[in-house]
Amino acid sequence: KRTPLRKTKDYVEGVLSGDRTILSQAITLIESRRDEHRELGRDILEACLPHAGKSVRIGITGVPGAGKSTFIESLGRHLIEKKGKRLAVLTVDPSSSRSKGSILGDKTRMPVLSTSQKAFIRPSPSSGSLGGVARQTRETMLLCEAAGYDTVFVETVGVGQSEITVHSMTDFFLLILIAGAGDELQGIKRGVMEMADLIAINKSEGDNRQAANRARLDYQNALSLFPEPPSGKRAEVMTCSALNNKGIVEIWEQIEEYLEYVKQTGFFSENRSDQSVHWMYETIHEQLKKIFYGNEEVKASLQEIREKVRSGEISSTRAADDLIRLFKSS
Amino acid sequence: KRTPLRKTKDYVEGVLSGDRTILSQAITLIESRRDEHRELGRDILEACLPHAGKSVRIGITGVPGAGKSTFIESLGRHLIEKKGKRLAVLTVDPSSSRSKGSILGDKTRMPVLSTSQKAFIRPSPSSGSLGGVARQTRETMLLCEAAGYDTVFVETVGVGQSEITVHSMTDFFLLILIAGAGDELQGIKRGVMEMADLIAINKSEGDNRQAANRARLDYQNALSLFPEPPSGKRAEVMTCSALNNKGIVEIWEQIEEYLEYVKQTGFFSENRSDQSVHWMYETIHEQLKKIFYGNEEVKASLQEIREKVRSGEISSTRAADDLIRLFKSS
Repeated sequence: KRTPLRKTKDYVEGVLSGDRTILSQAITLIESRRDEHRELGRDILEACLPHAGKSVRIGITGVPGAGKSTFIESLGRHLIEKKGKRLAVLTVDPSSSRSKGSILGDKTRMPVLSTSQKAFIRPSPSSGSLGGVARQTRETMLLCEAAGYDTVFVETVGVGQSEITVHSMTDFFLLILIAGAGDELQGIKRGVMEMADLIAINKSEGDNRQAANRARLDYQNALSLFPEPPSGKRAEVMTCSALNNKGIVEIWEQIEEYLEYVKQTGFFSENRSDQSVHWMYETIHEQLKKIFYGNEEVKASLQEIREKVRSGEISSTRAADDLIRLFKSS
Repeated sequence: KRTPLRKTKDYVEGVLSGDRTILSQAITLIESRRDEHRELGRDILEACLPHAGKSVRIGITGVPGAGKSTFIESLGRHLIEKKGKRLAVLTVDPSSSRSKGSILGDKTRMPVLSTSQKAFIRPSPSSGSLGGVARQTRETMLLCEAAGYDTVFVETVGVGQSEITVHSMTDFFLLILIAGAGDELQGIKRGVMEMADLIAINKSEGDNRQAANRARLDYQNALSLFPEPPSGKRAEVMTCSALNNKGIVEIWEQIEEYLEYVKQTGFFSENRSDQSVHWMYETIHEQLKKIFYGNEEVKASLQEIREKVRSGEISSTRAADDLIRLFKSS
């Protein structure tokens, strides 16, 4: 069964008044594969745009087993229960295939947030290209802001280049690790540590506290060898126990301190403008690729030509030229 | 004055026989802005391709002042004088504007290599997009291989994303640093350390030896926190003094050990095939952008639309849609 479409104006008013049902429906339009739905979704987004942008956007990533959900639940509860915030939790997961399962999943993962009226949890758009999924998440974020959510968490599950993507749509990037500098850390991908504005060593509890403190010092030393980030503010490494709600307040204070600093220097708004322009170019390039790889002539020849390149039979340049020629002539 | 063009066959034979003049001319064709020259260049490349690929490709980067030229001269001399190698030294520098100056520069920078018959130094193609410059350097590398150069250094000056680009066309990536963990290190960009297969702490000489050794330990510790690289072989950190030719032999032995390992595991050839396919896609995307941004309608509107995105007046998506529509309708 399908919900019949409303008028653009009705969606916009619904979103701006904070109506969660209409917000969800508007997001569904943005994620739709039907052109007329997406058109409508974009009209809604455009009308909501002047009311968006007033939140802080926190990107969150972490290795599997680091307790990311527990962390989000704990920090999120602090924000809605103690700080009077309204929180949207979004996910970028290009591998996801949305199902009842994953919605039930959120109830288990974040029991308080998933039932709070002050939190809005939206799982990742279903599988597609990372660029497409990310654009939809970014637009969802803007709608949530227009609906009055003043804090947005964008969680990444760490598939492909998703950390870079989440980093490019948020104001602050938080990396959650656990102590034990062994196999657990193999899950952090190259380049991710250098994007972090804060590293939280989670599960600093019981017997694990010493190891967590050691890890904190190790990472702090390692970070000091890194170049200064564009924000001008070096990443901090802090320990916490999301399970026991320990260290969470301090982490939030650190985030607030960072935000205050970058707002004062002007980096905050400059970075956001740069991100918007970046996303314009990303979207253009995504569209160009879609047009190119959707071309019938290109589709018919791509695989064969690619294999010739792989085996060294023809050069990358010649292959590209041949495909571009096919595209232009069709 | 222009050298009159030869026949494709003559260029190919010249390159394959190791004729340095003809090799230079063929490279000039690849770098030309004239379509018919580039066409000819590509025909030569295609004919040479079966004879290319038999070298080892070393990417080299380093902060300004780390003594990169002295290092290349020292390691290069070791290779041609002691190891019987023939060496090509190429540069990726999208900011360069080639001139007599830079050729004289190479004579000063690398006095022995620049006059040796066993070394072939070619400065970066003159300024252009990083993608374009990089593709030309990659094609130059293939021609040099066909001409019998069994070792290729691809130097990056660290502008923009050039390290990533050089990394994606080489078998081994070497980062040159100096001790003093202060301002000098600000020059290493985010993500570069994690791409390195070997970090050489140069200028380990005289009073600086202790500091270099300390830096070596610091970096070794920091690297141990990084995820294991795709090659399966962790980066080593070594000290050297290129000025005094100290530690250079050991660094080459380390590179050889690495290469032996990845050839055995199959990573070497797999990585090269992946790189070729990667470059096919890169070249396609570069061409698509060239077609798009060269479109008159797009050119006429891009700046105005981009500023509206920057100021938050319209969304990134709407801006991209509008530009794509202009492109399609023209």
